[in-house]
Amino acid sequence: MRKTKYGVSVDLQMDVDAAIKKTTDRLKDQGFGVLTDIDVQKTLKEKLDVDFVKYHILGACNPPLAHKALQAEEEIGLLLPCNVIVYETGEKRCRVAAIDVTAAMSVVGNEELTPVADEVAHKLAAVMTSLSEDFSDKE
Amino acid sequence: MRKTKYGVSVDLQMDVDAAIKKTTDRLKDQGFGVLTDIDVQKTLKEKLDVDFVKYHILGACNPPLAHKALQAEEEIGLLLPCNVIVYETGEKRCRVAAIDVTAAMSVVGNEELTPVADEVAHKLAAVMTSLSEDFSDKE
Repeated sequence: MRKTKYGVSVDLQMDVDAAIKKTTDRLKDQGFGVLTDIDVQKTLKEKLDVDFVKYHILGACNPPLAHKALQAEEEIGLLLPCNVIVYETGEKRCRVAAIDVTAAMSVVGNEELTPVADEVAHKLAAVMTSLSEDFSDKE
Repeated sequence: MRKTKYGVSVDLQMDVDAAIKKTTDRLKDQGFGVLTDIDVQKTLKEKLDVDFVKYHILGACNPPLAHKALQAEEEIGLLLPCNVIVYETGEKRCRVAAIDVTAAMSVVGNEELTPVADEVAHKLAAVMTSLSEDFSDKE
């Protein structure tokens, strides 16, 4: 598992479509539903006629935690849902990355949000660990 | 127009459904399509059986700028699309807020992104100004 300034990612040995299915399953295990799925490749082709790698932005939402966050901070919808991206890195190779919720929510500066953000971060880390353990690109 | 740590907002004299239509139009004027629309009230009712105010999260995307951002920073999809929220604050009263892209993207720390983020911020500010000028809640 790789950590960047605003996300955590894992490299998987499968194509993007398979990875979206596996990621959706593992998110569900942690109480997240996928509310939105933006097909970036398709959008850029349709709107700009440019070619791009296969790249999806999934909007994941854990309803009880989203509800808590909204109660603590009315406009937190500006930072919801939690994004998980899946994009191709080669043949039958892709990367799955999840937003670092603690980093993303740090701009808000509301202490009431901290325990909620920490719980979301913990659950997303569990999703990534589970994907990494089962399907990691060992090369 | 009101500025918070991570967004700009305006209060409008209309209901949420009307405001979504007007906001979508004004976003279109600035080159943004609305790719996603999460009905938070409906989601929380269905998943948790709790009552919440009418609250929508719109995912707005300006394709040429999104493409530039993705070329500058592969995983910027974690922070896309740009969220615009519309929620009720009273009878025929609502608030529209847009993410402060400069604040949200500050966590990335990639200088190549700065001019793109600035351009997006400028266009979203133009959307908010236009809504404020035409439909502001003057009370």
